[in-house]
Amino acid sequence: MSNRISIVMGSYSDWETMKNTAAVLDEFGVKYDKAVISAHRMPEEMMAFAKDAVDNGIEVIIAGAGGAAHLPGMVAANTVLPVIGVPVQSRSLNGLDSLLSIVQMPAGVPVATTAIGVAGAKNAALLALQILGVTDKTIQKDLLAYRQEMHDKAVESGDLLG
Amino acid sequence: MSNRISIVMGSYSDWETMKNTAAVLDEFGVKYDKAVISAHRMPEEMMAFAKDAVDNGIEVIIAGAGGAAHLPGMVAANTVLPVIGVPVQSRSLNGLDSLLSIVQMPAGVPVATTAIGVAGAKNAALLALQILGVTDKTIQKDLLAYRQEMHDKAVESGDLLG
Amino acid sequence: MSNRISIVMGSYSDWETMKNTAAVLDEFGVKYDKAVISAHRMPEEMMAFAKDAVDNGIEVIIAGAGGAAHLPGMVAANTVLPVIGVPVQSRSLNGLDSLLSIVQMPAGVPVATTAIGVAGAKNAALLALQILGVTDKTIQKDLLAYRQEMHDKAVESGDLLG
Amino acid sequence: MSNRISIVMGSYSDWETMKNTAAVLDEFGVKYDKAVISAHRMPEEMMAFAKDAVDNGIEVIIAGAGGAAHLPGMVAANTVLPVIGVPVQSRSLNGLDSLLSIVQMPAGVPVATTAIGVAGAKNAALLALQILGVTDKTIQKDLLAYRQEMHDKAVESGDLLG
Amino acid sequence: MSNRISIVMGSYSDWETMKNTAAVLDEFGVKYDKAVISAHRMPEEMMAFAKDAVDNGIEVIIAGAGGAAHLPGMVAANTVLPVIGVPVQSRSLNGLDSLLSIVQMPAGVPVATTAIGVAGAKNAALLALQILGVTDKTIQKDLLAYRQEMHDKAVESGDLLG
Amino acid sequence: MSNRISIVMGSYSDWETMKNTAAVLDEFGVKYDKAVISAHRMPEEMMAFAKDAVDNGIEVIIAGAGGAAHLPGMVAANTVLPVIGVPVQSRSLNGLDSLLSIVQMPAGVPVATTAIGVAGAKNAALLALQILGVTDKTIQKDLLAYRQEMHDKAVESGDLLG
Amino acid sequence: MSNRISIVMGSYSDWETMKNTAAVLDEFGVKYDKAVISAHRMPEEMMAFAKDAVDNGIEVIIAGAGGAAHLPGMVAANTVLPVIGVPVQSRSLNGLDSLLSIVQMPAGVPVATTAIGVAGAKNAALLALQILGVTDKTIQKDLLAYRQEMHDKAVESGDLLG
Amino acid sequence: MSNRISIVMGSYSDWETMKNTAAVLDEFGVKYDKAVISAHRMPEEMMAFAKDAVDNGIEVIIAGAGGAAHLPGMVAANTVLPVIGVPVQSRSLNGLDSLLSIVQMPAGVPVATTAIGVAGAKNAALLALQILGVTDKTIQKDLLAYRQEMHDKAVESGDLLG
Repeated sequence: MSNRISIVMGSYSDWETMKNTAAVLDEFGVKYDKAVISAHRMPEEMMAFAKDAVDNGIEVIIAGAGGAAHLPGMVAANTVLPVIGVPVQSRSLNGLDSLLSIVQMPAGVPVATTAIGVAGAKNAALLALQILGVTDKTIQKDLLAYRQEMHDKAVESGDLLG
Repeated sequence: MSNRISIVMGSYSDWETMKNTAAVLDEFGVKYDKAVISAHRMPEEMMAFAKDAVDNGIEVIIAGAGGAAHLPGMVAANTVLPVIGVPVQSRSLNGLDSLLSIVQMPAGVPVATTAIGVAGAKNAALLALQILGVTDKTIQKDLLAYRQEMHDKAVESGDLLG
Repeated sequence: MSNRISIVMGSYSDWETMKNTAAVLDEFGVKYDKAVISAHRMPEEMMAFAKDAVDNGIEVIIAGAGGAAHLPGMVAANTVLPVIGVPVQSRSLNGLDSLLSIVQMPAGVPVATTAIGVAGAKNAALLALQILGVTDKTIQKDLLAYRQEMHDKAVESGDLLG
Repeated sequence: MSNRISIVMGSYSDWETMKNTAAVLDEFGVKYDKAVISAHRMPEEMMAFAKDAVDNGIEVIIAGAGGAAHLPGMVAANTVLPVIGVPVQSRSLNGLDSLLSIVQMPAGVPVATTAIGVAGAKNAALLALQILGVTDKTIQKDLLAYRQEMHDKAVESGDLLG
Repeated sequence: MSNRISIVMGSYSDWETMKNTAAVLDEFGVKYDKAVISAHRMPEEMMAFAKDAVDNGIEVIIAGAGGAAHLPGMVAANTVLPVIGVPVQSRSLNGLDSLLSIVQMPAGVPVATTAIGVAGAKNAALLALQILGVTDKTIQKDLLAYRQEMHDKAVESGDLLG
Repeated sequence: MSNRISIVMGSYSDWETMKNTAAVLDEFGVKYDKAVISAHRMPEEMMAFAKDAVDNGIEVIIAGAGGAAHLPGMVAANTVLPVIGVPVQSRSLNGLDSLLSIVQMPAGVPVATTAIGVAGAKNAALLALQILGVTDKTIQKDLLAYRQEMHDKAVESGDLLG
Repeated sequence: MSNRISIVMGSYSDWETMKNTAAVLDEFGVKYDKAVISAHRMPEEMMAFAKDAVDNGIEVIIAGAGGAAHLPGMVAANTVLPVIGVPVQSRSLNGLDSLLSIVQMPAGVPVATTAIGVAGAKNAALLALQILGVTDKTIQKDLLAYRQEMHDKAVESGDLLG
Repeated sequence: MSNRISIVMGSYSDWETMKNTAAVLDEFGVKYDKAVISAHRMPEEMMAFAKDAVDNGIEVIIAGAGGAAHLPGMVAANTVLPVIGVPVQSRSLNGLDSLLSIVQMPAGVPVATTAIGVAGAKNAALLALQILGVTDKTIQKDLLAYRQEMHDKAVESGDLLG
């Protein structure tokens, strides 16, 4: 059986950010594909990836990119699967360019955008799991447990204040 | 049977934007709840709404808000359902405040953010349908048809250039 | 007798900033509570904290948070005590997201916002003392002395110019 | 007996915004002074106003200004009363200049900043009342009633969605 | 013989801006194609257009788009012809999103970006003519004449100052 | 025979960025001039350079500058050759000032603007080559090969994900 | 005797803003030249104007421009007279581009920048008068009277608050 | 005889930036006062300094400040001497707050604003010298020589490109 989630990124350098997505999915024991698919340097592969995604059994796509970040939007333009976009922090404009390039999509082609950088990469994984969790009650239960654990850690962290 | 999608907004004035979400869902013939649930003025109801959402049969939540837009994030903090956030265009800062308040969520609690204003409101509906479409092949097929129609209209609109 | 000021923060990592609030209060010999209360990871505790604050003898609340900083606004939504919000400097957008998420509150629920980062954390303490000082003339006198000392140090610092 | 709250503004044109502060105080039946005191065109009066405020029985100062908005900070520099700053929406930069000029105060001299424009003006009044309410339980009770009414109106507004 | 310049835009609504490009080319008597080719709604046509452009005799492509403006960059990714990008002024963020989405291209795939809105649309035409003028001395001569005329009009406009 | 491309920069410190332009041209074996020509400190030379460029056999000008970056626009004002502007990353505003100073040219005098910093510097070289490639089929062929190589490297980089 | 102040602007459309500069100088009875001198469309005249300014008896230059506003900086690069720059409010970016293009000058060539738009245009006149007033005590006295009048009007405007 | 130029700064920490102003004046052999005069911590001294400046023989005031930078504007409000404002680079917002707080002055009270940080500090000195140079032909001649030297150094720096 194929993986249900696919992580793609515009450049290998985005892996530094997107590995946080992978780590969260690993924690949940949910399998995923991962690939460098550049909208600008590999447009054919990008188009093919997006168009074949449903047939390949993928259910949610997570796409990370920086700068004039076209990957999430172009993947979204070629599939009706939910596409989650992660704005990778850019060097000059701190990711504001990445964020606006991803989130400001025109009516008709949504990209589910998360926060800039590492927090957004982690949340992309959780959002993908929440989407699967709509019908997969095991995942939904795991998400509740994760949320509880996160809660408990936050509570405990208060002890560090002394 | 309950509605699968719930549209909430921080203020009745957000309806001007969020009615575009409703219109898209109407077009697809998918039923939805809609309510004003202010994070700041109705915090108890907001908490209850989010916590009871799964049990009430809701599968995707769409939350629109403007300014210091806390509604999508606070709803997301109280459910493991996917929450889509729509930044409503604000008067002074053109929705940049709404966007940042919604999208810059900390690791652990994602909000699937769409574009500022009307485009984002429409896309929130489509994203919700895409999420349902992961397992509901009828919706997925309808999305493909919608996409095709959108494509055809775009092609035809070129004739207007003369 | 309970403490009159309460310092809360969205994450333990905010302590790096918020310890500056504590240091100023220490300097004035005014006691305070401090706690990690995450709006997103501990929403129940956050609600309870805010709603019980008056009964617990708290008179001013100082809340620090970063990114999509919802803690100050959500605490303010659940109490009529004055709430002071400190935008913690964020990694990607330098605290502009924190600032806008805290200050752009809708009519009805004010958050008294201070500057981004350390200066804002210190000023949150001083503002809390000014609020207590409205009726507590000892504190007001101490603030005048502090102001005088600050003045004198500024004057003296000029000698360093040579 | 003198008024406990004083509303000052940098220019008569700010009254369009600041009259919303006055309206909220009127609603609570709390008396206030109001004056045009320009930091740039009336610096002597501004200094005198701030320095005499405590002796004049004022307990909270609300200062509205736009552009390079120096009034709130300069008043705050000359009193240890709590000073609330309202960023008036400016013509060219939509109030971002006003906001940053007011909120980014250096350590030592806080200004309790509210949102840009009308929402901020209304909230300045509520924040002033919250400050008085710390010791004036009548005002605190009125604030609770106001909050309740605001809640009820928000709930009712949902009926308009049809 | 085919047209040497092609004007494409992401949506018919961009024509309001891009007709200014056409008008300048008309003034120079240089023929051009024009078409609505949406990167998001017509990705196949967009890819085909870009890949066939050289064979179709096109020498310069002008692409206008707004918001998360992916058209110029995606066309550029599929051709080695020079691609000029015109950021169309967007409703919420005044074209800052369009500008950053177009100009912040990664190394390897340039887009020659012009100013936001009408000025940029006119300049896109002039830039295309300058590119053709590198080897087409008639166009270069016409550009010099245009420049001279522009100069003369600017000089004359001074008389209006009285 | 003279060089067809000229790289100019506002200050020697810009070479750190602009050497990336030179490196790409070296890779293609295309010769170029390079010079420091400050619009503000060498205005006469700047004017002369721009006005003589056509006669000197230059076909494309690449100008890099930071801050209030006037060099690209002023060169463009004095030639009808295509001028490519590279916004050098500035210290205080991360290159946003450089970008806006270069790209927001008035109607009549275009500057083909690339991304801020190193990516923009590399792309300026590629854009210049694309412009020459319109009529120089050898360069166009080399660009296709470069694009193919870039594609292959992107594909291979995916292997690094493990 | 020649005029001591010269007002130049990049385009006749800037007169809408710059006429406010002229009006203030008229009020003071100080004569001035005014001209449209576009840095981009009339570079030769701009250079000549700046280089001849001292010999022509001009003592202060006021230059207004919008967008990629190069006029003030380029004039400043060609004279050692004080040059005052007025950022004209632009259509797309509200004058932020004009401001940054004017104020962010490199070390060596200052431009005395005033506020965006009408306020800045008026202040440019006052600043020019202050500069002349350093040695012209009549003007300095007139400035004091103007300041006093401004003060009195501000005081009187307070009566309008009722 | 008193010094003709006075350098003031809001905090000793601003000296790191403002010493660049002093260094340029030293290079020209023009004497100056320098002092820490905080608008917020030393308002009386600030007022007195500004009001006495003319009588003390000062001809130009240079004021550096960061964050909510009120010093330049408040000094300008209390003198009719030309006041030059230097936005010191701030920690959180890179000096954008400093710049807007200084430059966006209301009509009636100009501040001659220079660039953010070191470049602005150097230019403040040059601008002050240009102002004195209007009537002091020795300084004007020195400025011309400085400009020439700057030009020569820029020309020579080109040799470093190899």
